[in-house]
Amino acid sequence: MTVFDQATAVLPAGDGRYDIKPDERFAIVSGDGSMVGAVNGGVLLATVLRAVLDSSPHPHPVATSAHFLRVPRPEPAQVQVTWLKQGRTAATARASLIQDGVPVLEATVTTGTLGPAEGDGGLSWTGDPPRLPPIEECLGFTKVAESTRFSGFAGQVDLRLDPATTGWLRGKPAGTPEMRGYFQLREDRDADAYLLALAVDALPPVVFGLGAVGWSPTVELTWYMRAVPAAGVLRVAARCRHVSGGWFDEEAEVWDSAGRLVAQSRQIARLSRAA
Amino acid sequence: MTVFDQATAVLPAGDGRYDIKPDERFAIVSGDGSMVGAVNGGVLLATVLRAVLDSSPHPHPVATSAHFLRVPRPEPAQVQVTWLKQGRTAATARASLIQDGVPVLEATVTTGTLGPAEGDGGLSWTGDPPRLPPIEECLGFTKVAESTRFSGFAGQVDLRLDPATTGWLRGKPAGTPEMRGYFQLREDRDADAYLLALAVDALPPVVFGLGAVGWSPTVELTWYMRAVPAAGVLRVAARCRHVSGGWFDEEAEVWDSAGRLVAQSRQIARLSRAA
Repeated sequence: MTVFDQATAVLPAGDGRYDIKPDERFAIVSGDGSMVGAVNGGVLLATVLRAVLDSSPHPHPVATSAHFLRVPRPEPAQVQVTWLKQGRTAATARASLIQDGVPVLEATVTTGTLGPAEGDGGLSWTGDPPRLPPIEECLGFTKVAESTRFSGFAGQVDLRLDPATTGWLRGKPAGTPEMRGYFQLREDRDADAYLLALAVDALPPVVFGLGAVGWSPTVELTWYMRAVPAAGVLRVAARCRHVSGGWFDEEAEVWDSAGRLVAQSRQIARLSRAA
Repeated sequence: MTVFDQATAVLPAGDGRYDIKPDERFAIVSGDGSMVGAVNGGVLLATVLRAVLDSSPHPHPVATSAHFLRVPRPEPAQVQVTWLKQGRTAATARASLIQDGVPVLEATVTTGTLGPAEGDGGLSWTGDPPRLPPIEECLGFTKVAESTRFSGFAGQVDLRLDPATTGWLRGKPAGTPEMRGYFQLREDRDADAYLLALAVDALPPVVFGLGAVGWSPTVELTWYMRAVPAAGVLRVAARCRHVSGGWFDEEAEVWDSAGRLVAQSRQIARLSRAA
């Protein structure tokens, strides 16, 4: 069982309740190993999705919207799943991640199937894929952030960033809020819905490209699963459209090794006070 | 009081409950005046936002995510507002639109302020605005859909579409899933958060540009308010990134008359069975 699967495990406790524990192995840590950021939001989302899919009549989390209310501690917590509708083509559940009796993350999830639908006419269309240089020309965490020593999030995720989006590492931000890279776990594990939930929020904040620094807490994130991903490395591309009044949006696409768009996300986040 | 304000009115009934009535004057109707589609989802969202803002400690609905579960009838319904957190910079509420005891629309709303934040460094940046021809070169509903006779939604909304995105009206879809136009109410009413909630989902479905036809029910829609809009006509531009398995995404931006990006949305919807 991989660390990711351990970190996102849920234990059914009856009546739609699941026991979980936010895992510090996916927190942002400093060089001395102390936690400096929250447990990655994508890992929390993956955990919530496991609880939802445990009792879903449909296999895929097509649309997940989540509001991040508080920073969870790496201690026991619960996910409470309440089904609002279970229909023939889609089902919707509310899922609350609760710690010490207060909500930490409030999610609503619509599940469905992603295969061809009866009578949909078979219409399909996809926009241009992201352009990335070969993976061997991209920058891994070894070069990106020596100081993290592979602990915490950087110890679990093998991220290789397009050098065109890493000028901020040398104090020379590109001036455009974009981030692109290859994504996989360091452990050998195929992509699935849970890993997509991690991938959509795995890149450094797009505003680093504008000179912002520091942790940027996500306030709301919605992601859509568009296809079951093939095995292999994922490509992730993120951009921003507007930074203003301390808020910025970030939208990411995830493409699989077979060249298909498999996930889309958009989030709104706060600029760090240090920006 | 405009029809829009009547249609989105909420009557406090105590304990976070508000009485409402989905208004058929914002439904899609056929030439003979009968309802053929649901009451516009943006009008329902605006109604829910009125209920949420009635007790919000912050003025602006920064992030609203909504899952559409059932088609409401134009009969009495309720909105139930439950606050999950009320913080200094943001507050989050769950809001359920309920009719006959079952949820019709499940929304989560994070409110906040949109002005400059203390210590945010004042960073601001915006992507390129949409390109639209002058409004007098765009197509209004008079030319777009004579048969609606200005009843229902088309009777309330004055939408002028960029001719580059209206080939589908002549049986010649452009082949790209894009839609652009000017948006205002037919009645004289300044833009605000509630009208933005309508504007983000007011254009015809982007998939009409690919030859799809018929009503495309929204399954999930999230929208961000980015600035308080100036008075005047709004510009709305929407695109799609992926159509597959009977699902498509649609993302819209709303720009105000002062040239500022004031709202962003993304939704996932079902292709019509007729497509």
